[in-house]
Amino acid sequence: MSYFRDNIERMAGYQPGEQPKDGKYVKLNTNENPYPPSPKVIDAIKDAANSNLRLYPDPLATYVRENAANVFGTKPENVLVGNGSDDLLTIIIRSFAGPGDKVVYPYPTYMLYKTLAELQDAIACPIDFPDDYSLPNGISVKGAKVTFVANPNSPSGTIIPAGEISKLAEKMDGVLVLDEAYADFADSNCLTLVDKYPNILVLRTLSKSYSLAGLRLGFCIANEAIIQGMIKAKDSYNVDRLSMAAAIAALDDQETLKRNVAGIKETRAFLSNSLSEMGFFVYPSQSNFVFFRCSSVFAARQIMQKLKNRKILIRYFDIPKADDCLRVTVGTKEEIGYFLDNLRDIIKEEGLSKQVAVKRKKEAAALYKYEH
Amino acid sequence: MSYFRDNIERMAGYQPGEQPKDGKYVKLNTNENPYPPSPKVIDAIKDAANSNLRLYPDPLATYVRENAANVFGTKPENVLVGNGSDDLLTIIIRSFAGPGDKVVYPYPTYMLYKTLAELQDAIACPIDFPDDYSLPNGISVKGAKVTFVANPNSPSGTIIPAGEISKLAEKMDGVLVLDEAYADFADSNCLTLVDKYPNILVLRTLSKSYSLAGLRLGFCIANEAIIQGMIKAKDSYNVDRLSMAAAIAALDDQETLKRNVAGIKETRAFLSNSLSEMGFFVYPSQSNFVFFRCSSVFAARQIMQKLKNRKILIRYFDIPKADDCLRVTVGTKEEIGYFLDNLRDIIKEEGLSKQVAVKRKKEAAALYKYEH
Repeated sequence: MSYFRDNIERMAGYQPGEQPKDGKYVKLNTNENPYPPSPKVIDAIKDAANSNLRLYPDPLATYVRENAANVFGTKPENVLVGNGSDDLLTIIIRSFAGPGDKVVYPYPTYMLYKTLAELQDAIACPIDFPDDYSLPNGISVKGAKVTFVANPNSPSGTIIPAGEISKLAEKMDGVLVLDEAYADFADSNCLTLVDKYPNILVLRTLSKSYSLAGLRLGFCIANEAIIQGMIKAKDSYNVDRLSMAAAIAALDDQETLKRNVAGIKETRAFLSNSLSEMGFFVYPSQSNFVFFRCSSVFAARQIMQKLKNRKILIRYFDIPKADDCLRVTVGTKEEIGYFLDNLRDIIKEEGLSKQVAVKRKKEAAALYKYEH
Repeated sequence: MSYFRDNIERMAGYQPGEQPKDGKYVKLNTNENPYPPSPKVIDAIKDAANSNLRLYPDPLATYVRENAANVFGTKPENVLVGNGSDDLLTIIIRSFAGPGDKVVYPYPTYMLYKTLAELQDAIACPIDFPDDYSLPNGISVKGAKVTFVANPNSPSGTIIPAGEISKLAEKMDGVLVLDEAYADFADSNCLTLVDKYPNILVLRTLSKSYSLAGLRLGFCIANEAIIQGMIKAKDSYNVDRLSMAAAIAALDDQETLKRNVAGIKETRAFLSNSLSEMGFFVYPSQSNFVFFRCSSVFAARQIMQKLKNRKILIRYFDIPKADDCLRVTVGTKEEIGYFLDNLRDIIKEEGLSKQVAVKRKKEAAALYKYEH
C-alpha cells in the first residue's frame, strides 16, 4: 500500500542534467554560463551575510521587483519573483491547471512541463514541432488551461517570432506561458506582449545570462491580476535574503551582462560554424547552447559517451525526435576549442566519420525557416 | 472571466506576519531568533560567494543531507532538504492529497495548513483543540490523507507527548506530519518515531533555533520510500548553493545552537512568569514564544494595537478560539524587558487594567494538563 497519490506513484519524476560533484569535467550539459557572475553580486552577498539572516525575508521581494521592473521596462506590480523559474512554473501550474485539465506544449522542449502536468494530475498534451521547429499547427488546443512555449526553445535553441506568438495568444482560451530563460541570447523577445495580452506570462531567470544558476532567482512578468492571483499560490517566503541581495546587484550591473552575452554569442557562432563544417546539421541558435543533428541515434549516443569518457559532458536526450541530436552548451572559447578538438579526434580516430556525416544535405536548408 | 482555477479564485491566501521594512520596530511577532546566526555560517556564506554560483546546485543537497542525518541521528536517505519547511509542506500536500481528499489538523494551529489544502482543492478538516491544547479526540479522521500536527504547536506553544503521537500514528490511514519547527526549544520530540512508523514525517527547520529564517532551509525526516516519492514532487533545484553552505556550517556548530536555545529558554521563563504575575493566563511554552490569554477579544486587540503604536510588534490572530489571546516571541532579555515595561504602562496608564485581569483564575489551572 502506498500513501502517495496515484499520479505521483505513476510518474517517473524529472531528471535534471548530470551535476558531477568532483568538478573534473568540462561541463557543457546544463546550459550554465561559463563566465563568473558580476563581482558586484559577490560583494552584495558578502554584505548581506550578516545578523539579519535571523529575520524572515520580505515575502514579495519588493526591492527585487522594483529593480526587475526597471530592467524589463514594466511596473513592479507586473513582476513576481520566484526561487528560480522552476518555482514560478510550479506556481503557474497550480494556479491554472487542475486534475484532468489540458496542459499543452510543443515537443521536444523543456521536459519539466510534462512533469508539472503529471504532478497536477492534469493531461499533458505534447504537440510535435515540425522539423524546422516553427510553431506547430496544432498548438492552439481548445480548452487548454496552460500552454507552455520555451522561447528560445530547448533543446533546439530556435525561436518563434513575436508575431506568431501574438496570433497564438489571440486564439487561446487559457494562459500562454513564454519561458524566456534564454532571451538575453536572442535577437528578439516577447516582453512587450504582456501589455497587450492578459493571458501572456513571460518568465525570465538569472540562471543563464546572469551566471547565477546556483542562486535560484526567476521572474514572472504578467498583468497585475495574474500576478496577484499567483501570489496566493506561492510559498510565503519563497526567496531568501541572500538571493534578493544578489539579484538586486545582478540586475544593476547590465555592463557585465552585456559583455558576457556578447562573448557567448561570439563563441556560439564559432561553435555553430565549426560543427557545420564538420558535416553536422546545426540548428540556428538564439540561446547559449547549440543543437546539432548526427546521422543516427547510434552516432549521437556514441559521441556523447566517448566525450564523457574524455571528461567532457554534453547533453543527450533519449526521447523521440531528439535522440539523433546532441546539445552542447556554449562554454568559454577554450572549452569549446577543447570540445571541438576532442570531437574531431573521436570522429577521426574512432571511425565514426561516416556515421556523423549528414546524409540529407538537401534537407538541411529546409530544416529551419525563420530568418535571423 | 478568470484564468485561475476555481479553488485558487476562492481562496484568500496565507497572510504571513508583518515584516516591516524600516527596521524601527521591536519585532516580537514572527518567532524569529533574537540572536545572530553562528559566525561560522557567515564565514561559510562568504566563502561560497564565488564563481561557482554560475553552476546549478546539487539537486539533492547531498552534503547537507549527510550533516543533517548526523545531527538528527538518522541516515541521509531518510532526509529531504527543502527551501524552508514551507517548501516541504508544499511537497507533502502535493504528494499525498488530491482534490476532495481530507486534510486534517487541530485548530488553532499554523494557518498555512488550511492554505495548502485549499491550493490542492482538498477538504480542510480543522478539529478544535480542547482548552488545554491536548490532542483533540476527533483528530484521527477516517480516510484522512494528510494530518498535520505542529508540535510544539503555534500559536499555543504547547506540546503533545510522543506517546500520544504514537497512538495516533497507529490509528491513521494516511500520513502524519509532525511539524517540529520549534522542537529545539522543547523538552521532547518525535524524531525517533520515524523509525517505527512508516507514515510519520517529521519537519525541522533552521529558521528558529539556528537563527536563519532569512535563509530558507528545512528538513523532512521520514522513511526512505516516503523520501524517494517526495523527491519526484519537488523542484529539481529547490535549495541554492549559499543556503547549502550555510546549512552545513549551521548544523556543524551545535555549541552556538545550544547557547542560543539556553538563552531563549531562560528569557521564556522570565517572560511567562512576568505575564502570570500581571494576571494573564499563560500557556506553558515549549517553543520560542509565549501565548497568553487576555480577558476579552477587545482587550487583546487593544494591547496589540497600543504596543504597535509604541513600535512593538506582537502577534494577534483574528480567528475563533485565539482572538482573546496574544503571542509574543521570546526576544533578547532587553527586548522582553522593554515589552513588559510597555505592557505594564499600557495597562496602568491607559486604563485597561480591569479588562486584562484574568477573570477565571480557577479555570486556569485546568487549562493545561501535561506535566513538564
